[in-house]
Amino acid sequence: MIKAALSVLLVLVAVSSSFGKYTPKTGKRVPQTLSRGWGDQLIWAQTYEEALYWSRSRNKPLMVIFHLEDCPHSQALKKVFSEDNKIQKTLDEDFIVLNLVYETTDKHLSPDGQYVPRIIFVDPSMTVRADINGRYSNRMYAYEPSDINLLLNNMAKAKKLLKSEL
Amino acid sequence: MIKAALSVLLVLVAVSSSFGKYTPKTGKRVPQTLSRGWGDQLIWAQTYEEALYWSRSRNKPLMVIFHLEDCPHSQALKKVFSEDNKIQKTLDEDFIVLNLVYETTDKHLSPDGQYVPRIIFVDPSMTVRADINGRYSNRMYAYEPSDINLLLNNMAKAKKLLKSEL
Repeated sequence: MIKAALSVLLVLVAVSSSFGKYTPKTGKRVPQTLSRGWGDQLIWAQTYEEALYWSRSRNKPLMVIFHLEDCPHSQALKKVFSEDNKIQKTLDEDFIVLNLVYETTDKHLSPDGQYVPRIIFVDPSMTVRADINGRYSNRMYAYEPSDINLLLNNMAKAKKLLKSEL
Repeated sequence: MIKAALSVLLVLVAVSSSFGKYTPKTGKRVPQTLSRGWGDQLIWAQTYEEALYWSRSRNKPLMVIFHLEDCPHSQALKKVFSEDNKIQKTLDEDFIVLNLVYETTDKHLSPDGQYVPRIIFVDPSMTVRADINGRYSNRMYAYEPSDINLLLNNMAKAKKLLKSEL
Protein backbone atom coordinates (compact mmCIF):
# COMPACT_ATOMS: atom_id res chain seq x y z
CA MET A 1 0.00 0.00 0.00
CA ILE A 2 2.84 2.35 0.89
CA LYS A 3 4.63 1.22 -2.27
CA ALA A 4 1.56 2.02 -4.35
CA ALA A 5 1.26 5.45 -2.77
CA LEU A 6 4.92 6.09 -3.44
CA SER A 7 4.52 5.10 -7.08
CA VAL A 8 1.58 7.48 -7.50
CA LEU A 9 3.63 10.22 -5.87
CA LEU A 10 6.55 9.54 -8.21
CA VAL A 11 4.29 9.66 -11.25
CA LEU A 12 2.76 12.94 -10.03
CA VAL A 13 6.21 14.45 -9.50
CA ALA A 14 7.29 13.29 -12.96
CA VAL A 15 4.15 14.71 -14.60
CA SER A 16 4.35 18.05 -12.80
CA SER A 17 8.03 18.49 -13.58
CA SER A 18 7.46 17.86 -17.28
CA PHE A 19 4.49 20.26 -17.19
CA GLY A 20 6.78 22.82 -15.59
CA LYS A 21 9.23 22.97 -18.49
CA TYR A 22 8.79 25.82 -20.92
CA THR A 23 7.95 24.64 -24.43
CA PRO A 24 7.73 27.07 -27.36
CA LYS A 25 4.43 27.27 -29.23
CA THR A 26 6.11 25.79 -32.28
CA GLY A 27 7.10 22.69 -30.30
CA LYS A 28 10.15 21.46 -28.46
CA ARG A 29 13.46 22.50 -30.03
CA VAL A 30 16.75 20.62 -30.13
CA PRO A 31 19.25 22.62 -28.04
CA GLN A 32 21.69 24.61 -30.20
CA THR A 33 25.25 23.32 -29.93
CA LEU A 34 28.42 25.36 -30.08
CA SER A 35 29.82 22.78 -32.50
CA ARG A 36 26.94 23.45 -34.89
CA GLY A 37 27.72 20.06 -36.39
CA TRP A 38 31.47 20.56 -36.98
CA GLY A 39 32.47 18.14 -34.22
CA ASP A 40 30.41 17.60 -31.08
CA GLN A 41 33.43 16.18 -29.24
CA LEU A 42 35.60 19.29 -29.68
CA ILE A 43 35.79 22.16 -27.20
CA TRP A 44 34.63 25.19 -29.18
CA ALA A 45 35.46 28.76 -28.27
CA GLN A 46 32.40 30.99 -28.16
CA THR A 47 33.88 34.22 -29.48
CA TYR A 48 36.92 35.32 -31.44
CA GLU A 49 38.26 37.13 -28.37
CA GLU A 50 37.96 33.97 -26.29
CA ALA A 51 39.61 31.92 -29.04
CA LEU A 52 42.54 34.35 -29.31
CA TYR A 53 42.99 34.26 -25.55
CA TRP A 54 43.08 30.45 -25.51
CA SER A 55 45.38 30.36 -28.51
CA ARG A 56 47.89 32.69 -26.87
CA SER A 57 47.74 31.15 -23.43
CA ARG A 58 48.00 27.54 -24.65
CA ASN A 59 50.34 28.35 -27.55
CA LYS A 60 48.14 26.49 -30.02
CA PRO A 61 47.12 27.66 -33.49
CA LEU A 62 43.50 28.70 -33.98
CA MET A 63 41.21 27.49 -36.75
CA VAL A 64 38.26 29.76 -37.53
CA ILE A 65 35.47 28.31 -39.67
CA PHE A 66 32.98 30.72 -41.20
CA HIS A 67 29.83 28.96 -42.37
CA LEU A 68 26.08 29.28 -42.65
CA GLU A 69 23.53 26.73 -41.51
CA ASP A 70 21.53 26.91 -44.74
CA CYS A 71 24.46 26.99 -47.20
CA PRO A 72 24.77 23.66 -49.08
CA HIS A 73 28.55 24.10 -49.59
CA SER A 74 28.99 24.64 -45.85
CA GLN A 75 26.83 21.60 -45.11
CA ALA A 76 28.76 19.36 -47.50
CA LEU A 77 32.13 20.38 -46.07
CA LYS A 78 30.81 20.05 -42.52
CA LYS A 79 29.71 16.47 -43.11
CA VAL A 80 33.13 15.33 -44.36
CA PHE A 81 34.93 17.47 -41.78
CA SER A 82 32.97 16.18 -38.79
CA GLU A 83 33.31 12.56 -39.90
CA ASP A 84 37.07 12.72 -40.53
CA ASN A 85 38.76 11.16 -37.53
CA LYS A 86 42.18 12.54 -38.27
CA ILE A 87 40.91 16.11 -38.54
CA GLN A 88 38.86 15.78 -35.37
CA LYS A 89 41.71 14.21 -33.37
CA THR A 90 44.27 16.77 -34.55
CA LEU A 91 41.95 19.67 -33.83
CA ASP A 92 41.12 18.30 -30.39
CA GLU A 93 44.75 17.84 -29.41
CA ASP A 94 46.63 20.60 -31.19
CA PHE A 95 44.24 23.43 -32.09
CA ILE A 96 41.87 26.00 -30.65
CA VAL A 97 38.65 25.87 -32.67
CA LEU A 98 35.96 28.42 -33.38
CA ASN A 99 33.07 28.23 -35.82
CA LEU A 100 31.07 31.33 -36.60
CA VAL A 101 27.83 31.94 -38.48
CA TYR A 102 28.49 35.65 -38.27
CA GLU A 103 31.37 37.84 -39.41
CA THR A 104 33.51 39.53 -36.78
CA THR A 105 34.48 43.20 -36.93
CA ASP A 106 38.11 42.16 -37.54
CA LYS A 107 38.85 42.56 -41.25
CA HIS A 108 41.99 40.44 -41.03
CA LEU A 109 39.67 37.44 -40.94
CA SER A 110 38.39 38.20 -44.44
CA PRO A 111 41.59 38.76 -46.47
CA ASP A 112 39.75 38.28 -49.78
CA GLY A 113 36.14 38.87 -48.79
CA GLN A 114 33.37 37.48 -46.64
CA TYR A 115 32.12 34.19 -48.05
CA VAL A 116 31.29 30.76 -46.67
CA PRO A 117 32.59 28.19 -46.10
CA ARG A 118 35.90 29.84 -45.28
CA ILE A 119 38.67 28.53 -43.04
CA ILE A 120 41.26 30.90 -41.61
CA PHE A 121 44.21 29.92 -39.43
CA VAL A 122 45.56 32.27 -36.77
CA ASP A 123 48.97 31.87 -35.15
CA PRO A 124 49.25 32.15 -31.33
CA SER A 125 51.19 35.37 -32.01
CA MET A 126 47.76 36.66 -33.17
CA THR A 127 48.88 36.82 -36.79
CA VAL A 128 46.29 35.71 -39.35
CA ARG A 129 47.97 33.07 -41.54
CA ALA A 130 46.88 34.52 -44.88
CA ASP A 131 49.62 32.32 -46.40
CA ILE A 132 47.70 29.12 -45.61
CA ASN A 133 45.01 28.79 -48.25
CA GLY A 134 43.01 26.35 -50.35
CA ARG A 135 43.07 25.71 -54.09
CA TYR A 136 40.71 28.39 -55.43
CA SER A 137 42.32 31.64 -56.52
CA ASN A 138 39.08 33.64 -56.36
CA ARG A 139 38.15 32.37 -52.91
CA MET A 140 41.48 31.55 -51.37
CA TYR A 141 40.19 30.25 -48.04
CA ALA A 142 37.32 28.11 -49.35
CA TYR A 143 37.46 24.32 -49.19
CA GLU A 144 35.29 21.70 -50.86
CA PRO A 145 34.65 18.23 -49.42
CA SER A 146 37.26 16.82 -51.85
CA ASP A 147 39.89 19.21 -50.39
CA ILE A 148 40.00 17.49 -47.03
CA ASN A 149 43.58 16.26 -47.47
CA LEU A 150 44.71 19.72 -48.48
CA LEU A 151 43.05 20.97 -45.30
CA LEU A 152 44.97 18.40 -43.27
CA ASN A 153 48.23 19.55 -44.91
CA ASN A 154 47.31 23.14 -44.09
CA MET A 155 46.67 22.18 -40.49
CA ALA A 156 50.20 20.72 -40.39
CA LYS A 157 51.50 24.07 -41.74
CA ALA A 158 49.56 25.99 -39.10
CA LYS A 159 51.09 23.78 -36.40
CA LYS A 160 54.52 25.12 -37.39
CA LEU A 161 54.21 28.31 -35.39
CA LEU A 162 55.53 31.57 -36.79
CA LYS A 163 57.98 32.27 -33.96
CA SER A 164 59.79 29.02 -34.70
CA GLU A 165 60.50 30.39 -38.19
CA LEU A 166 62.48 33.31 -36.77
CA MET B 1 19.38 -17.47 -44.08
CA ILE B 2 19.27 -14.21 -45.99
CA LYS B 3 17.71 -12.61 -42.91
CA ALA B 4 20.56 -13.90 -40.75
CA ALA B 5 23.15 -12.57 -43.20
CA LEU B 6 21.39 -9.22 -43.24
CA SER B 7 21.42 -9.08 -39.45
CA VAL B 8 25.14 -9.80 -39.37
CA LEU B 9 25.67 -7.09 -41.99
CA LEU B 10 23.63 -4.61 -39.95
CA VAL B 11 25.61 -5.39 -36.82
CA LEU B 12 28.88 -4.98 -38.72
CA VAL B 13 27.75 -1.63 -40.11
CA ALA B 14 26.67 -0.49 -36.66
CA VAL B 15 29.98 -1.57 -35.09
CA SER B 16 32.10 0.02 -37.81
CA SER B 17 30.18 3.30 -37.67
CA SER B 18 30.60 3.54 -33.90
CA PHE B 19 34.29 2.71 -34.34
CA GLY B 20 34.45 5.47 -36.91
CA LYS B 21 33.41 8.26 -34.54
CA TYR B 22 36.20 10.24 -32.96
CA THR B 23 36.27 9.88 -29.18
CA PRO B 24 38.67 11.94 -27.05
CA LYS B 25 41.13 10.03 -24.86
CA THR B 26 39.37 11.34 -21.78
CA GLY B 27 36.10 9.76 -22.93
CA LYS B 28 32.99 10.91 -24.77
CA ARG B 29 31.94 14.47 -24.03
CA VAL B 30 28.45 15.96 -23.85
CA PRO B 31 28.14 18.46 -26.75
CA GLN B 32 28.44 22.08 -25.58
CA THR B 33 25.21 24.03 -25.96
CA LEU B 34 24.88 27.70 -26.84
CA SER B 35 22.35 28.01 -24.01
CA ARG B 36 25.00 26.85 -21.52
CA GLY B 37 22.11 25.92 -19.25
CA TRP B 38 20.23 29.26 -19.35
CA GLY B 39 17.36 27.88 -21.43
CA ASP B 40 17.80 25.10 -23.97
CA GLN B 41 14.57 26.09 -25.74
CA LEU B 42 15.68 29.65 -26.51
CA ILE B 43 17.42 30.77 -29.69
CA TRP B 44 20.76 32.17 -28.51
CA ALA B 45 22.85 34.61 -30.49
CA GLN B 46 26.44 33.50 -30.82
CA THR B 47 28.19 36.87 -30.65
CA TYR B 48 27.42 40.39 -29.51
CA GLU B 49 27.55 41.61 -33.12
CA GLU B 50 25.02 38.98 -34.17
CA ALA B 51 22.78 39.83 -31.20
CA LEU B 52 22.87 43.56 -32.03
CA TYR B 53 21.99 42.81 -35.63
CA TRP B 54 19.02 40.65 -34.62
CA SER B 55 17.90 43.22 -32.06
CA ARG B 56 17.90 46.02 -34.62
CA SER B 57 16.34 44.07 -37.44
CA ARG B 58 13.56 42.53 -35.30
CA ASN B 59 13.14 45.61 -33.09
CA LYS B 60 13.42 43.55 -29.93
CA PRO B 61 15.43 44.40 -26.81
CA LEU B 62 18.56 42.36 -26.14
CA MET B 63 19.46 40.67 -22.86
CA VAL B 64 23.15 39.92 -22.35
CA ILE B 65 24.07 37.55 -19.53
CA PHE B 66 27.69 37.45 -18.42
CA HIS B 67 28.48 34.37 -16.38
CA LEU B 68 31.10 31.73 -15.68
CA GLU B 69 30.57 27.98 -15.71
CA ASP B 70 32.40 27.46 -12.41
CA CYS B 71 30.98 30.44 -10.49
CA PRO B 72 28.48 29.29 -7.82
CA HIS B 73 26.52 32.59 -7.98
CA SER B 74 26.14 32.19 -11.75
CA GLN B 75 25.07 28.58 -11.28
CA ALA B 76 22.46 29.45 -8.65
CA LEU B 77 20.95 32.22 -10.76
CA LYS B 78 21.03 30.02 -13.85
CA LYS B 79 19.05 27.28 -12.13
CA VAL B 80 16.20 29.61 -11.10
CA PHE B 81 16.37 31.50 -14.40
CA SER B 82 16.20 28.42 -16.62
CA GLU B 83 13.35 26.89 -14.60
CA ASP B 84 11.21 30.06 -14.56
CA ASN B 85 8.54 29.63 -17.20
CA LYS B 86 7.56 33.26 -17.37
CA ILE B 87 11.14 34.41 -17.92
CA GLN B 88 11.74 31.75 -20.56
CA LYS B 89 8.48 32.48 -22.42
CA THR B 90 9.00 36.26 -22.36
CA LEU B 91 12.58 35.93 -23.55
CA ASP B 92 11.56 33.55 -26.31
CA GLU B 93 8.82 35.80 -27.61
CA ASP B 94 10.00 39.33 -26.96
CA PHE B 95 13.80 39.36 -26.57
CA ILE B 96 17.05 38.62 -28.32
CA VAL B 97 19.24 36.62 -25.92
CA LEU B 98 22.98 36.22 -25.60
CA ASN B 99 24.98 34.58 -22.85
CA LEU B 100 28.73 35.03 -22.69
CA VAL B 101 31.46 33.43 -20.63
CA TYR B 102 33.89 36.00 -21.96
CA GLU B 103 33.91 39.80 -21.90
CA THR B 104 33.49 41.69 -25.17
CA THR B 105 35.70 44.58 -26.21
CA ASP B 106 32.73 46.95 -25.82
CA LYS B 107 33.12 48.80 -22.51
CA HIS B 108 29.49 49.93 -22.55
CA LEU B 109 28.62 46.39 -21.46
CA SER B 110 30.48 46.84 -18.18
CA PRO B 111 29.18 50.17 -16.84
CA ASP B 112 30.43 49.41 -13.31
CA GLY B 113 33.02 46.72 -13.92
CA GLN B 114 33.38 43.17 -15.20
CA TYR B 115 31.83 40.73 -12.76
CA VAL B 116 29.52 37.71 -13.00
CA PRO B 117 26.67 37.07 -13.00
CA ARG B 118 25.74 40.34 -14.70
CA ILE B 119 22.69 41.07 -16.84
CA ILE B 120 22.70 44.04 -19.22
CA PHE B 121 19.79 45.13 -21.42
CA VAL B 122 20.39 46.78 -24.78
CA ASP B 123 17.74 48.71 -26.67
CA PRO B 124 17.25 48.00 -30.43
CA SER B 125 18.60 51.54 -30.96
CA MET B 126 21.89 49.98 -29.74
CA THR B 127 21.81 51.95 -26.51
CA VAL B 128 22.93 50.04 -23.41
CA ARG B 129 20.16 50.44 -20.80
CA ALA B 130 22.42 51.38 -17.89
CA ASP B 131 19.23 52.62 -16.21
CA ILE B 132 17.86 49.09 -15.80
CA ASN B 133 19.63 47.56 -12.82
CA GLY B 134 19.30 45.21 -9.88
CA ARG B 135 19.28 45.93 -6.14
CA TYR B 136 23.00 46.05 -5.31
CA SER B 137 24.63 49.46 -5.38
CA ASN B 138 28.18 48.10 -5.64
CA ARG B 139 27.32 45.66 -8.47
CA MET B 140 24.40 47.32 -10.15
CA TYR B 141 23.76 44.63 -12.78
CA ALA B 142 24.08 41.58 -10.53
CA TYR B 143 21.06 39.45 -9.63
CA GLU B 144 20.64 36.75 -7.02
CA PRO B 145 18.17 33.85 -7.32
CA SER B 146 15.80 35.74 -4.98
CA ASP B 147 15.78 38.72 -7.39
CA ILE B 148 13.94 36.87 -10.14
CA ASN B 149 10.80 39.05 -9.84
CA LEU B 150 12.90 42.19 -10.03
CA LEU B 151 14.46 40.74 -13.16
CA LEU B 152 11.00 40.17 -14.64
CA ASN B 153 10.09 43.79 -13.86
CA ASN B 154 13.31 44.92 -15.51
CA MET B 155 12.47 42.86 -18.58
CA ALA B 156 9.14 44.70 -18.74
CA LYS B 157 11.06 48.00 -18.58
CA ALA B 158 13.40 46.89 -21.37
CA LYS B 159 10.38 46.03 -23.53
CA LYS B 160 9.37 49.72 -23.43
CA LEU B 161 11.75 50.76 -26.17
CA LEU B 162 13.63 54.03 -25.96
CA LYS B 163 12.27 55.49 -29.16
CA SER B 164 8.71 55.21 -27.79
CA GLU B 165 9.79 57.53 -24.97
CA LEU B 166 10.58 60.36 -27.40
